[in-house]
Amino acid sequence: MNKRLLIAQGGGPTAVINQTLVGAVFEAQRQGFSEIYGARHGVRGIIDRQFIDLGRETPTRLERVAYTPSSALGSTRDKPDAAYCARILEVLKEKQIDHFFYIGGNDSADTVRLVSEAAEQSGYPLCALHLPKTVDNDLVGNDHTPGYASAARYITQTLMGADLDNRALPGVYLAVIMGRHAGFLTGAAAMARHYPDDGPHLLYLPERTFDMDRFLADVDQIYTRLGRCVVALSEGIHDASGEPIVTRLIQAEKDAHGNVQLSGTGALADLLSTTLREKLGLKRVRGDTLGYPQRSFFGCYSQVDAQEAREVGEYAVQCAMAGQRAQSIALQRVGDYAVSYTLIPLTTVAAQTRVVADDWITAAGNDVTPAFCHWLRPLLGSELPVPGHIV
Amino acid sequence: MNKRLLIAQGGGPTAVINQTLVGAVFEAQRQGFSEIYGARHGVRGIIDRQFIDLGRETPTRLERVAYTPSSALGSTRDKPDAAYCARILEVLKEKQIDHFFYIGGNDSADTVRLVSEAAEQSGYPLCALHLPKTVDNDLVGNDHTPGYASAARYITQTLMGADLDNRALPGVYLAVIMGRHAGFLTGAAAMARHYPDDGPHLLYLPERTFDMDRFLADVDQIYTRLGRCVVALSEGIHDASGEPIVTRLIQAEKDAHGNVQLSGTGALADLLSTTLREKLGLKRVRGDTLGYPQRSFFGCYSQVDAQEAREVGEYAVQCAMAGQRAQSIALQRVGDYAVSYTLIPLTTVAAQTRVVADDWITAAGNDVTPAFCHWLRPLLGSELPVPGHIV
Repeated sequence: MNKRLLIAQGGGPTAVINQTLVGAVFEAQRQGFSEIYGARHGVRGIIDRQFIDLGRETPTRLERVAYTPSSALGSTRDKPDAAYCARILEVLKEKQIDHFFYIGGNDSADTVRLVSEAAEQSGYPLCALHLPKTVDNDLVGNDHTPGYASAARYITQTLMGADLDNRALPGVYLAVIMGRHAGFLTGAAAMARHYPDDGPHLLYLPERTFDMDRFLADVDQIYTRLGRCVVALSEGIHDASGEPIVTRLIQAEKDAHGNVQLSGTGALADLLSTTLREKLGLKRVRGDTLGYPQRSFFGCYSQVDAQEAREVGEYAVQCAMAGQRAQSIALQRVGDYAVSYTLIPLTTVAAQTRVVADDWITAAGNDVTPAFCHWLRPLLGSELPVPGHIV
Repeated sequence: MNKRLLIAQGGGPTAVINQTLVGAVFEAQRQGFSEIYGARHGVRGIIDRQFIDLGRETPTRLERVAYTPSSALGSTRDKPDAAYCARILEVLKEKQIDHFFYIGGNDSADTVRLVSEAAEQSGYPLCALHLPKTVDNDLVGNDHTPGYASAARYITQTLMGADLDNRALPGVYLAVIMGRHAGFLTGAAAMARHYPDDGPHLLYLPERTFDMDRFLADVDQIYTRLGRCVVALSEGIHDASGEPIVTRLIQAEKDAHGNVQLSGTGALADLLSTTLREKLGLKRVRGDTLGYPQRSFFGCYSQVDAQEAREVGEYAVQCAMAGQRAQSIALQRVGDYAVSYTLIPLTTVAAQTRVVADDWITAAGNDVTPAFCHWLRPLLGSELPVPGHIV
């Protein structure tokens, strides 16, 4: 029996999403799939019939792609509805695709669900699997998701350097970090600390209401004690009504999912910097919005993350061989530290958002707990740099 | 004869400024200096008498410091005048310091000049040397300066990733890069290209007048051809009158040198993004201001840069042993590729600014030339990542 696989990548790129792609390609070849296609730009490339024959790529080239950040097939922000998914199914039938892997976040899981349902309704035998990736780590049912750890490592190394810079030229430094609803990436800033009084000194996650007066008091306290202060905060911090702090300022652009654009603007850092200068009379305040390098800087990744992302691709093929049809791959933690791969229902993941657990955020709401750091540490991989100080 | 050395670090941190510090300490120990002190926070720590006995640091600790970014002794933005330098000399006399090394940029060279003059006038025998560092590469009399190549490498890897991200999710991406008057760092973005049509597609350096209409036409042309466009530009881009573009927008903060603060704000990227949306009707425009990670990200440096920075420290001690008194260390290129170290007059470097040569910028003023890339390539060190594409 011929097996024909189509793979696509959706949503924001990560440093290791191509590992998953390449893992699936190699394992599908090993398992005797007759055709392995990639769709350009996610679901958009399916309905546009922009297919690439991945079986023609050499192993050497694919290995290089695996270690290249961003989505090698291209991605999309399209969020298909049932009608869009019916068109996807139409193309799958036309191309005689009986296996469809979509590598993406919770929206991509929802797409797989819709396509699966359409296939089932029309009696078309289709194995459709969702392969997880997201820098935000916001997928329900997973200990963590491929892509997160590499972005977390980038943030750790950035904040290590930012803290050293702030020691040399003291003042207040703000780092605005990706994360609309989930503060996992901002939490990773905590891993930059090695010694007492190392920064970042304050972390603000979108899981807690951001209170400007409280923020000012927090910074004032640290600055008074140390003569400097390093702050990490999520782009998605919001007031008690749920309104993002940044939308107080800017004409917000909305994407196809109705989400306000938070990345790619320095407005939040600038707003908070100005507020600190005006309210606390601080002279040297700097704010960086870490931006796209968090997910696509070329040359900083977690080897643990890369390996797990690869295995997700391999595992998906093995699930397909075992007759699985409409599921999401999930990562579970086994011991300290290993992972196992499993299948969970698409509805567990689809359009759901996991956030940082309550007991991973301190009572004061301005830091993560040791339990969070214990959870994160093994994901970052080995050979993290360690700063030397002159004391 | 006892030899007593004081070392200080001034201005903005770099990824390798501690290499220079550690190179000087080890070589001074080897040459039998009796005391080796470090001053906290540059010249500020001298007049505040905040000295550290560097002879007490273990080699292991110093090696770790050498590979740690930022200024381990702390830095300062103080720009001493003659009166301030007279106070510095007073402390040097009091502590019986007969060797003073100041690691810094052109302002630090000017400080060394003033202190040297004061010492000479008062008949105090002082060897005062300026040891170069700057991420901006704006020191006259040098082929390049320690610190630049590591920041350039960070920018190269950032733009490599940004271009891959922009391929996956096409639109316009702007990266605002450090550099007030000198565009060497923005030029480094060109090294991110490997294949035809790789980004960045446009580079704007402060050596050329920034014309908004021209910019819009440039972006429009690239976007029309490729459906995407990646732009790298210096924070210091300015209009024909020399007024920075960013000051059209923000209440600019000025530092002690009278310079407008350009870093640590996302205003320029936001201004240009908004203009592109409004004037060209583009939907997806993102702007990142790369910020402090350019100079202090922990884990990205050029090994060539690190080694040269170390040798600058060693060479300074050797110059002192040879009886040199008031000079600046400079790097000269020998062959392709090696460097030699030499001494140049402090007045050659002090308060001067080197900018990118005319023939290293294209006639259209929106890119660097192959000659610039040929000059830069060996500085970046080995093992730069190479992207894999699926074609």
